[in-house]
Amino acid sequence: MRTLPFAMRRLDLRTERKTQLLDITAEVRRALEDQTGQAAVVFVPHTTAGIVLQASGEGATQVAVDLEAALRRIVDEEWKWKHTGEGDRNPWAHVRAALTASSVTIPLEDGKLALGDLQRIFFCEFDGPRKRQVYLAVT
Amino acid sequence: MRTLPFAMRRLDLRTERKTQLLDITAEVRRALEDQTGQAAVVFVPHTTAGIVLQASGEGATQVAVDLEAALRRIVDEEWKWKHTGEGDRNPWAHVRAALTASSVTIPLEDGKLALGDLQRIFFCEFDGPRKRQVYLAVT
Amino acid sequence: MRTLPFAMRRLDLRTERKTQLLDITAEVRRALEDQTGQAAVVFVPHTTAGIVLQASGEGATQVAVDLEAALRRIVDEEWKWKHTGEGDRNPWAHVRAALTASSVTIPLEDGKLALGDLQRIFFCEFDGPRKRQVYLAVT
Repeated sequence: MRTLPFAMRRLDLRTERKTQLLDITAEVRRALEDQTGQAAVVFVPHTTAGIVLQASGEGATQVAVDLEAALRRIVDEEWKWKHTGEGDRNPWAHVRAALTASSVTIPLEDGKLALGDLQRIFFCEFDGPRKRQVYLAVT
Repeated sequence: MRTLPFAMRRLDLRTERKTQLLDITAEVRRALEDQTGQAAVVFVPHTTAGIVLQASGEGATQVAVDLEAALRRIVDEEWKWKHTGEGDRNPWAHVRAALTASSVTIPLEDGKLALGDLQRIFFCEFDGPRKRQVYLAVT
Repeated sequence: MRTLPFAMRRLDLRTERKTQLLDITAEVRRALEDQTGQAAVVFVPHTTAGIVLQASGEGATQVAVDLEAALRRIVDEEWKWKHTGEGDRNPWAHVRAALTASSVTIPLEDGKLALGDLQRIFFCEFDGPRKRQVYLAVT
């Protein structure tokens, strides 16, 4: 049992495309190694990005591509938007982010993330490419 | 005050339809009985299922049916998908799951789930019927 | 370091429009002042309201307006709904709420909410105007 509480930790990421689902499971696991607690919080401190748990393994890349395409379709850039005009404004990216999650809380079992066999943690970029961060807490 | 931390617990579920919202509030309450903590985490370890808190009481069945139908409509199986072909692939189920939540964290008050009067916990099946699980943690 | 655990706290809100994103960041910060813990849970005990973290600062009002409009567009009141008829029924409000979140968990750093620079906490009203509540827990 840890005696000092886990201090919030930051992961640095870099995305490479406008819309991109980035598998960050390995980085999150590494950052949480040897922590004792009941659950891990994965938090996105951005307003045009989000977090989802989705499929890994064979066909997983296709699931990510399908999810990227579906979110572009559900939230259409051609709609009449208010928050456009000057600068590089992107209201659709904010809406897509709002449809995913800003935080996900994953139970820990014996200090390990209790993800399902097929689950991976995806950072969802909706306005890349950019430098991004994810915050981790253990509760 | 409990002296031993609550160990993560698994609930076993069985869904009966392709798309189904299943009220699991009673099972979650029973599993958490006599626990002391600040909040309960309800976590879905699957990639074609999710969790939502939605309405109970009179008309609740209709709300669940409407939500099932709306998610089928928002994410259309007729779109051109990548992750199809061989096997029983279902990219739309992954997207519907991503639009709901993988985890919800509910405050505890005097050891009880602090749900609103009309709130119930629904497991959201998007690729049933199947055996499923929900993980519970107390933080 | 607090010696007594933080007891769940309720914030009282009042919304003014049918669909409204209400910035509650200042109220949440005030309620959590001087608390020590790893993360704060912001929870909505309603079934026609939700929570999202979204953009503040210049243009933020427009982002909120765009998000309100997009959710009205993604979930169309003109669809054929079951849960209508007698009374003031509003299945679309339940679906919009389900697409946002019922809870968000925000890491604490030195007792402060670790929000991103542009992030604010928005209560999402989908069936106002009404008196509403938000519950806060610290874990």
